[in-house]
Amino acid sequence: MNERLNRLANLPLRENLQGLKPYGAPQIDVPIQLNVNENTHPLPAEVHRAIVEEVSAAAVGLNRYPDREFTELRERLAAYLGHGLEADNVWAANGSNEVLQQILQAFGGPGRTVMGFPPTYSMYPLLASGTDTTYVAGVRTECYGLSAADAAVQVRETAPNIVMLCSPNNPTGTALGLDVVEAVYEAGEASHAIVIVDEAYAEFAHTGTASALSLLPGRERLIVSRTMSKAFALAGARLGYLAAAPEVTDAIRLVRLPYHLSAITQATANAALKHVDALLANVEAIKVQRDRIVNELTRMGLEPASSDSNFVFFGGLANPKAIWEGLLEAGVIIRDVGIPGHLRVTAGTEAETTAFLVRLEELLHQGPHTL
Amino acid sequence: MNERLNRLANLPLRENLQGLKPYGAPQIDVPIQLNVNENTHPLPAEVHRAIVEEVSAAAVGLNRYPDREFTELRERLAAYLGHGLEADNVWAANGSNEVLQQILQAFGGPGRTVMGFPPTYSMYPLLASGTDTTYVAGVRTECYGLSAADAAVQVRETAPNIVMLCSPNNPTGTALGLDVVEAVYEAGEASHAIVIVDEAYAEFAHTGTASALSLLPGRERLIVSRTMSKAFALAGARLGYLAAAPEVTDAIRLVRLPYHLSAITQATANAALKHVDALLANVEAIKVQRDRIVNELTRMGLEPASSDSNFVFFGGLANPKAIWEGLLEAGVIIRDVGIPGHLRVTAGTEAETTAFLVRLEELLHQGPHTL
Repeated sequence: MNERLNRLANLPLRENLQGLKPYGAPQIDVPIQLNVNENTHPLPAEVHRAIVEEVSAAAVGLNRYPDREFTELRERLAAYLGHGLEADNVWAANGSNEVLQQILQAFGGPGRTVMGFPPTYSMYPLLASGTDTTYVAGVRTECYGLSAADAAVQVRETAPNIVMLCSPNNPTGTALGLDVVEAVYEAGEASHAIVIVDEAYAEFAHTGTASALSLLPGRERLIVSRTMSKAFALAGARLGYLAAAPEVTDAIRLVRLPYHLSAITQATANAALKHVDALLANVEAIKVQRDRIVNELTRMGLEPASSDSNFVFFGGLANPKAIWEGLLEAGVIIRDVGIPGHLRVTAGTEAETTAFLVRLEELLHQGPHTL
Repeated sequence: MNERLNRLANLPLRENLQGLKPYGAPQIDVPIQLNVNENTHPLPAEVHRAIVEEVSAAAVGLNRYPDREFTELRERLAAYLGHGLEADNVWAANGSNEVLQQILQAFGGPGRTVMGFPPTYSMYPLLASGTDTTYVAGVRTECYGLSAADAAVQVRETAPNIVMLCSPNNPTGTALGLDVVEAVYEAGEASHAIVIVDEAYAEFAHTGTASALSLLPGRERLIVSRTMSKAFALAGARLGYLAAAPEVTDAIRLVRLPYHLSAITQATANAALKHVDALLANVEAIKVQRDRIVNELTRMGLEPASSDSNFVFFGGLANPKAIWEGLLEAGVIIRDVGIPGHLRVTAGTEAETTAFLVRLEELLHQGPHTL
């Protein structure tokens, strides 16, 4: 491997990539995978059937380029989102990472800045660097919160070109109040800032949590991004999307690669969107396990963050590495997100959650892992 | 539409995008589509069956992220390419446009240059602008040729970071001799230039035309890009790939979005690669029609370029716009690539080619379209 690295170093890599390592959680084949916030419930049979049928129909014309405007898919995504949105308000790409990359290509770039509030989704700085946009890190409170007033002051002082708000936030799991989004949007007026609210986990929020979709009317600099990877249990299909003013989608048409969404991807997503109820049926079950994890971890003396997502971020660990390894030995993989004293676990099925909780409690009793 | 443009102009678009229009040939629904160099032969039934079966198997695990390294696909692509290549030499993405974008993200960027030789694939300058790489246009001879000596002199003088050679070239259709690739590679030594040979149409080359794949050993700055869109009749599946030294794929791992290739895309391409012979069966038939077009156009007094691809670029037209419109009226769409006096047509099935040729000859006799 060292020889491979030496050979890489001899290539004319662009300066800001030199010495870096590729992003990505380890793909380790263990029985219980709770490390990348997948929906661990398998696809319902009726959705599988619908996908295969729709792909079969699309494959007949696979020798032709796909519909570059993926009109049917945009219509279906708009209908799913509601809030009076139409196809013209919607854009999609191969995963929400590509959606975000396209937004940065359109509105970021050399000499421009994008502001995020770490700890947050770790792809943001990488997407910034991949599009030569300067990443500026805002500051949260000690408990990883972010108030409207505090966020607005920071945005006003920094005057970024783009602001990334992640709600529910990854890795902490907590949703932002809409007052934060409103305040950041207003504070971004002076620098004409695009404000992205990344709602990848929105479907898992506690009942009554409002989506930033409701703020779109009259705010042409606001973009809400979503994904079919989580609640829709379609991580393997790579379908991310956004809702915004129609001119935002026009801007992205200037940077998207032509035919970026394959006919097969369009067919898969269209088929899934005909079965929204069946696909989302497991969301409630996952929320039950998520709340169970929060309660159980609290009972064990740990410090879980309030979660509106399908995962729980928890602190109070003296030696998270030992806990992570102890779980892995028992066939349970969770995520070390690199924050001292903390780990993150995905809420799986009831059985997976039980396996995680039982093993965790064993480990906590075995040694001085907690504070 | 004007209102939409005004609204777009009010967004904080990055400077180099302001006033631009999206790339893309018109997607017009006419009976005979010979405008985007698709393989107009439908997918063989056995390949369709294989794709649906493999997608059905992959869809079972669609709730999980796909294999980020798409190992099976890289193995199959390497086996197809031969030349002693292995999985470590291969990379793939959603269409060869994305492959090229990733190469530019890794080796181009602000302060760097990419050199092409127009007329050539019109996405090159757009990919350059999308990655903030400066595009430098080299010069061909009057008949769109490019000799080894001439290309080498230009590369030495320009000292670009990346050179794009398109062979067979789009839109002219002619393959480059390997001596040109060798000379450009050597001339790029001084500026440590990455040399990309875009062989999207390689499978249609005349018998005996060598691929730049044969030049890879010992040339770690050389990259050969390919696609499954053309010869494989899979434009709708969006699968482009490259072959290069293993460290080149390591470089691209630094810029690729994680999980960029969906499980469904991997399954589709894997299934197709199990049926290479059936898929490539139509290539010979297409070459026959391609040669027939060249012969017939010559007979009509037009000036077709020598073609190693599945399309023919032809000049000698006084009014290409009138010819293009006259063909469209008869339900045949071809491509106006914006070069005075010229048009480009895809070689379709025998019947499609006949419809094109018959209508074209009628139009030529109707008015003073030729010189």
